[in-house]
Amino acid sequence: MGAAAEETQSESAAPEGRFPLLSRIDSPEDLRGLPEAALPSLAEEIRGFMVESVSKTGGHLSSSLGAVELAIALQYVFNTPRDRIIWDVGHQAYAHKILTGRKGRFGTLRRFHGLSGFPKRSESEHDAFGTAHSSTSISAALGMAVAAKLRGETDRWTVAVIGDGALTGGMAIEALNDAGVYKSGVKLLIILNDNDCSISPPAGALSGHLAKIVSTRAFNSARERGKRALKHVPCLWDIAKRMEKQAINFVSPPSAIFSAFDLNYYGPIDGHDLKELVEVLRNLRELDQPLVLHVATQKGKGYKPAELNPTLYHGVSPFDPQKGIVVSDKPDKPTYTQIFGRWVCDMAERDDRLYAITPAMREGSGLVEFEKRFPERYRDVAIAEQHAVTYGAGLACGGLKPVVAIYSTFLQRALDQVIHDVALQNLPVMFAVDRGGIVGADGATHQGAFDIAELRGIPNMTVMTPSDENECRLMLNTAFAMDTPAAVRYPRGKGPGVEVSANFETIPVGVSRTLRAGHGVAFLGFGAMTNVLKPVAEALDATLIDMRFAKPLDRAVILRAAASHSLVVTAEEGALAGGAGEGVSSVIEEAGLVVSVMHFGLPDAFVEQGSHDEVMRELNLTSEAIEAAVRRRLAERTIEHGAFV
Amino acid sequence: MGAAAEETQSESAAPEGRFPLLSRIDSPEDLRGLPEAALPSLAEEIRGFMVESVSKTGGHLSSSLGAVELAIALQYVFNTPRDRIIWDVGHQAYAHKILTGRKGRFGTLRRFHGLSGFPKRSESEHDAFGTAHSSTSISAALGMAVAAKLRGETDRWTVAVIGDGALTGGMAIEALNDAGVYKSGVKLLIILNDNDCSISPPAGALSGHLAKIVSTRAFNSARERGKRALKHVPCLWDIAKRMEKQAINFVSPPSAIFSAFDLNYYGPIDGHDLKELVEVLRNLRELDQPLVLHVATQKGKGYKPAELNPTLYHGVSPFDPQKGIVVSDKPDKPTYTQIFGRWVCDMAERDDRLYAITPAMREGSGLVEFEKRFPERYRDVAIAEQHAVTYGAGLACGGLKPVVAIYSTFLQRALDQVIHDVALQNLPVMFAVDRGGIVGADGATHQGAFDIAELRGIPNMTVMTPSDENECRLMLNTAFAMDTPAAVRYPRGKGPGVEVSANFETIPVGVSRTLRAGHGVAFLGFGAMTNVLKPVAEALDATLIDMRFAKPLDRAVILRAAASHSLVVTAEEGALAGGAGEGVSSVIEEAGLVVSVMHFGLPDAFVEQGSHDEVMRELNLTSEAIEAAVRRRLAERTIEHGAFV
Repeated sequence: MGAAAEETQSESAAPEGRFPLLSRIDSPEDLRGLPEAALPSLAEEIRGFMVESVSKTGGHLSSSLGAVELAIALQYVFNTPRDRIIWDVGHQAYAHKILTGRKGRFGTLRRFHGLSGFPKRSESEHDAFGTAHSSTSISAALGMAVAAKLRGETDRWTVAVIGDGALTGGMAIEALNDAGVYKSGVKLLIILNDNDCSISPPAGALSGHLAKIVSTRAFNSARERGKRALKHVPCLWDIAKRMEKQAINFVSPPSAIFSAFDLNYYGPIDGHDLKELVEVLRNLRELDQPLVLHVATQKGKGYKPAELNPTLYHGVSPFDPQKGIVVSDKPDKPTYTQIFGRWVCDMAERDDRLYAITPAMREGSGLVEFEKRFPERYRDVAIAEQHAVTYGAGLACGGLKPVVAIYSTFLQRALDQVIHDVALQNLPVMFAVDRGGIVGADGATHQGAFDIAELRGIPNMTVMTPSDENECRLMLNTAFAMDTPAAVRYPRGKGPGVEVSANFETIPVGVSRTLRAGHGVAFLGFGAMTNVLKPVAEALDATLIDMRFAKPLDRAVILRAAASHSLVVTAEEGALAGGAGEGVSSVIEEAGLVVSVMHFGLPDAFVEQGSHDEVMRELNLTSEAIEAAVRRRLAERTIEHGAFV
Repeated sequence: MGAAAEETQSESAAPEGRFPLLSRIDSPEDLRGLPEAALPSLAEEIRGFMVESVSKTGGHLSSSLGAVELAIALQYVFNTPRDRIIWDVGHQAYAHKILTGRKGRFGTLRRFHGLSGFPKRSESEHDAFGTAHSSTSISAALGMAVAAKLRGETDRWTVAVIGDGALTGGMAIEALNDAGVYKSGVKLLIILNDNDCSISPPAGALSGHLAKIVSTRAFNSARERGKRALKHVPCLWDIAKRMEKQAINFVSPPSAIFSAFDLNYYGPIDGHDLKELVEVLRNLRELDQPLVLHVATQKGKGYKPAELNPTLYHGVSPFDPQKGIVVSDKPDKPTYTQIFGRWVCDMAERDDRLYAITPAMREGSGLVEFEKRFPERYRDVAIAEQHAVTYGAGLACGGLKPVVAIYSTFLQRALDQVIHDVALQNLPVMFAVDRGGIVGADGATHQGAFDIAELRGIPNMTVMTPSDENECRLMLNTAFAMDTPAAVRYPRGKGPGVEVSANFETIPVGVSRTLRAGHGVAFLGFGAMTNVLKPVAEALDATLIDMRFAKPLDRAVILRAAASHSLVVTAEEGALAGGAGEGVSSVIEEAGLVVSVMHFGLPDAFVEQGSHDEVMRELNLTSEAIEAAVRRRLAERTIEHGAFV
């Protein structure tokens, strides 16, 4: 068992000698037994342990390094699991995991059958709410706090820890608007983990007491930070600069927003000063209403390479902690993301109507180069998927050709906008849907499982699923050339390695390509599954069709396949329920044809993390497993056939 | 042609004598030809015309009466269609429609093949963006304004008119956050149509010049308005009261939010004072950057009964304009909404864990009585579907039993939250999904077409579709009794009239009920379509099964039906693509059975407005049409059968 082996390895990586305090902590009770003076040393040990472990497993390093003291202080002051701590997005919660009984398994992080990279209710009673998609924590925490009040659990606190980025998501503001109405008895503490800026020495020195910071000095430093932040993605906290010209004497910039929602605001305080954190949290715990504490932290804190380049260390693959991440410049076969990244630049050069939009996923979506070359036609709208889509609809009305680059799992958050604002008006907004299908280590919260089913149901929409790199390029060209809504849905990572020419060719909409003419069985592949079907089709001397389009389906080829084969097999790396395979069956049924059909795809269950190979094996979606299942069906069918006709 | 007849009737209802100014206006150019002094009289004529017409057709009266002067002033000052006006939600845009060439067809409003009740791009070049779902206008307008800038269309303005309620939707704030970054060259005017409060005389008197209102008097009156607003749903504009204790000297309350996003804010001004409106808009038009104008209007303005009770006149059925709406107290068979409204009170009395949530649809979802009786366990979270769902997830974590009452079409906006926050964690959040299927006059934007397909794909979810009123009650009981996510999806309006007993009985999950045993054809009905199938099954002496559950499907009964009939027919009032019918086929296919199948449901097209009967006829979803199609299939099948086996 790989997972078990790593667990042992990880345990041995934390001998008492190197982590004397941490080795004694197997639960929050152990932590609470430590003297307060020992906490800073514990923080250092956790950092060392975390860097060592994550450098082996990979994971979200920068954010978690920044929240070590916060995790310690929260567990030290609050009484989980009775009190509840919700980590928004959750990729900053590694210290929380290490402190709550999961240190021994930390070496299995994000691995198959290992610890999740995110908080997860089924993993620990200390994970009050599963997170991963942004901006959910205040809503969930408010629900828990109101429930506690109604149930008379007057001692019970709920804490939501939310980053400055996550607060740009509309639902976080919806929740603030709602939370501000509650007064006494609702023990909700919202911690703004402001890690876009480190707190400057003067403000950070204002430690000790629970107090609003009203000095001009604090305000000025905040304003300076706001100016710096403005150079990047705009976010709520840019108010510093914005308020300045109004000459309104704010306590500190973010207080404006929170005060607007009638939430009592405290801070900012230094999120790496354990003494101050513990003292302030203890004081806040005595209060009895929704509160906001603004904590300034630094991404990557305590590990120099990550401090210097927090974005590089945001989500890391295994690396040597002594050397840090060495960026390789050896050419490798490109990922689908890179193919998109190159295409979007090529097409932008050719067509000045192209406008690229990302909801805070510039790196992940392959738009770094595009932003540099076409800054006027690029927009990172922050974590705001809904706005991203409807903003695209507006651009399309204005005569541009918007390309919304978005992960499959995050497109879910803008489905109404795709339906109501784009498709209903039949606007030419193009969606580059990355991470369609199994995503690997991020697991259940991030699988691109539902996109084909969701998009296929939307009138006016075209949905393409490339089976290799050059197909992806052709489909991007095709989607861009259309004057109706279109999505190209491609997988995470690399394809089979087909050379991509710098072409601008398009393909006919709704037309498949037959890769192999055979008999008996017709295999209809969508996207990457076409490659999985290939050896099966060869083994059975069967027909193999790359469907290319999940919508519109190639009705002609489906009907020909149904009429000339005894079994039609579909395969897609997406949910079976509502998927393209079911669409194939509907085409056959509508024509009044009767033929045996099998569908392969993702099951009616949330699929957990693991490498792509591990997960596909577990789901019986390998060539071997599909061939075996098809052979079984062929055998069965011969036997049972007489019974039903 | 009914529509044509009404058109004539409507024309004749606007003789020159009664509407002398309006009768001369067939386009915005005609309007712009009027002297400014004539505009107030025109506003009065439009009000008269609107009340007369809407009292015959039904429609959204209060909001549109409140926006008459705004529509006139915008068309008078701006140059549509070159300039663009986007009406958020859009039910306040009747005057806009009347002024832009649709006066003659206004008598067909919301009718089959008639004018849409919302702005619609395909209806008029003056409808810059189709709206209906809330909070989309700023995103779309920003897109258009940025496109104009990039295309060098330096004269071109885009105006978004958004109500105070719509600004509570998270995507509107996402858009504000993004809009604030743009400076010169982006001609975006956001008009806050604040119709929760009428402007008080002192502030309203500050007319004439374009100026920020800085007097203490204005601030005070605004604060008073804020206090009044606080008694209702909390909204962003409650800041008046909230800011007060901070002793920050704001210009006027909403300015805080807009200023926070670095948007230049003007107002508030009196939205019924045409002179002031025209002058201010003319001045703003000379500027060259994103702007916010705060306009105070009164819902129902100019029609006394609507002024006195704007909620009653929000969406009206035909009524006598002289008498106003007469609320009938004669008992009628209840709507599904009323059945839910009664059930939720009954169950709340029995189980004190029940907690009801609505995203700003108290009346529409049948929660008026519940709020009165159980105010502590009721929450209107404002127009915030995403927060509504995840707040429910939090309540469930806290041991309560949340019931999220939501329209099918609005549930789309919270799909990610249903998947990621509720279903993935398998939390017992119950969804009372109203308006599933065809909704009538609201048309394409509001059809409950996609819910079954969307919900059926979500692991851990149970989806029930009642075929009559008592079934609805049983299913509400059942969903509430479950400790996993469950949705009961019922149609708009009334059912077949089955008596509902005040029971608390539950039904077995995933088990259908066979209404009729026959032969040859097995009809599998989901929800209301079961009743449409009934006469067909009788005519063919066929089997009829009320499936009850769209998920999990009753596999046993499906397989029995497939094995013992030559044709399986499914029917649902939801999209065919990804619908329950396709699920039935998958069950059959997975078992290796081969049988002829037909699905009836909503097509791959956006379905337009009309009465339920008209629409279902057009879609060939009547008993007669289904019987004919099934008979055709039976005939065809006999002929063609030999070809495929």
